[in-house]
Amino acid sequence: MERGEATVGCMAQLGTLAIVGPGLIGGSVAAALRKQYPLVRILGAGRNPLSVQVAKDLGLIDEVVSLEEAAQRADVILLTMPVGATESVLRTLMPHLQPHTVVTDAGSTKVNVVEAARQALGDKVAQFVPGHPIAGAEKVGPQAATAELYQGRNVILTPLDENSEQARNAVVALWKACGARVLLMTPDVHDRVLASVSHVPHFLSSVFMWQVAMAPDADLRFAVAGSGFRDFTRIAAGSSEVWRDIFLSNREAVLQELEEVRQAFAQAEQALRSEDGAALEDFLERAALARRLWAGRSGL
Amino acid sequence: MERGEATVGCMAQLGTLAIVGPGLIGGSVAAALRKQYPLVRILGAGRNPLSVQVAKDLGLIDEVVSLEEAAQRADVILLTMPVGATESVLRTLMPHLQPHTVVTDAGSTKVNVVEAARQALGDKVAQFVPGHPIAGAEKVGPQAATAELYQGRNVILTPLDENSEQARNAVVALWKACGARVLLMTPDVHDRVLASVSHVPHFLSSVFMWQVAMAPDADLRFAVAGSGFRDFTRIAAGSSEVWRDIFLSNREAVLQELEEVRQAFAQAEQALRSEDGAALEDFLERAALARRLWAGRSGL
Repeated sequence: MERGEATVGCMAQLGTLAIVGPGLIGGSVAAALRKQYPLVRILGAGRNPLSVQVAKDLGLIDEVVSLEEAAQRADVILLTMPVGATESVLRTLMPHLQPHTVVTDAGSTKVNVVEAARQALGDKVAQFVPGHPIAGAEKVGPQAATAELYQGRNVILTPLDENSEQARNAVVALWKACGARVLLMTPDVHDRVLASVSHVPHFLSSVFMWQVAMAPDADLRFAVAGSGFRDFTRIAAGSSEVWRDIFLSNREAVLQELEEVRQAFAQAEQALRSEDGAALEDFLERAALARRLWAGRSGL
Repeated sequence: MERGEATVGCMAQLGTLAIVGPGLIGGSVAAALRKQYPLVRILGAGRNPLSVQVAKDLGLIDEVVSLEEAAQRADVILLTMPVGATESVLRTLMPHLQPHTVVTDAGSTKVNVVEAARQALGDKVAQFVPGHPIAGAEKVGPQAATAELYQGRNVILTPLDENSEQARNAVVALWKACGARVLLMTPDVHDRVLASVSHVPHFLSSVFMWQVAMAPDADLRFAVAGSGFRDFTRIAAGSSEVWRDIFLSNREAVLQELEEVRQAFAQAEQALRSEDGAALEDFLERAALARRLWAGRSGL
């Protein structure tokens, strides 16, 4: 399967879900599931006990547990900590995993995550169904979680050949219960496409924000910045740790895409430098038409 | 005066306003003024008679007139066509201008506009008070105009030494009636600062959108693009003609700023290439902190 849309139906029951790193992403899954399944039992585990405790205080999770206990008790485990921790978390879970438990993740890259899972889980990798919800917000932490985060949004799964139909369906059902649309593709296609439409924009937005902040007259610049600036830089407020891991984890695809961007940048800059109004307008018009077409189709 | 905030009060009466090129920017001024001053008379003129007629059909302007008639009848003339047309429009207006008439503009660059005004108006340049509202939308044309566009937004004026107190106050009052806050600065400070927080983001957003649209798998990329992509590329949908003129008109300041961005880009890219996680996280964290600080202060 190169790619496609999953068509499995809804979840009859969920049992016990464990969320590793219940921040914005995991907390929003918890909030959405609680609405659909008031009886669901949600365990929370994570490196930062204070943050997991906040998720409990907010009612997103029922119990704070260790990774070992999460592996022993959960029917489904969702990893939502930064992707760089995937291998070490899976190594800790592995010896304690029940045979029927399905593990999935929400990492923004997939080739590296699949490699990490194969290293950490060995034969049990059949229990791991990699995933990535295309949703987020500039806010971080469990206090930013909302039940609506995934409503109408895409979630990409990149199932392994080893996954059983049942394991895959359990993850599809989890995300559908959150209101998401589930797409299937291979890890390398996922990483190439996400490098372009998610990682590069974050890189450019952050580079720009950093450059403005370093300017001697940064205060004046910020004082007159308007709504275009606001929207262009919104993503730059995201978690630096999460994004460091994403960039490192998808390094090659991002670097390749940045090279394409650099060439387009140089071509547009040359048009400006040489005062070539026709070439400038041509590139601006192609960008504007593509953006307007996308807006009409995307529903975002 | 290097810069500051104008503190003049409200407009007692407006008389007749003429808007040259009543699209989103001019049409929104018309809509806001009609709410405050139901009796105001608004004339519309422009290169594209169909678009001006749409402004009339929408009730934004009362009459479609020629540039000559606008000059003969208006108390205040607001130029809101693309900045590249400033000199030729002012040349056409000049012989017909009444001595008391105040002309202002909404162009996104100011050094070039002031030069064009001096060339076109000669001694009458005292009647021209350059301005720039920091507001806009990705939509274009009079049908996108709203009375709220300038509510709480900044408008920068870069008055000339030749301007009378009266002329300057008339333009301050015009924008305050639209709900805007008026800031004063010199044209070169304006252009340098706007190159950074407005023109460079538009350049980067458009270069990126163009690059994605050219990719062989553009359809798949667009299909999985999420809300980060949406916000980062919103400005790229703007009018290519308007932005061509802005870039050409503020070419040197934009090129200088792009050079700074290129250096920041190269530094961040090098951190990624060499897998320097600490350097990556440092730049991402500085960007994130600056953006969060700005969000708390800007009120946008």
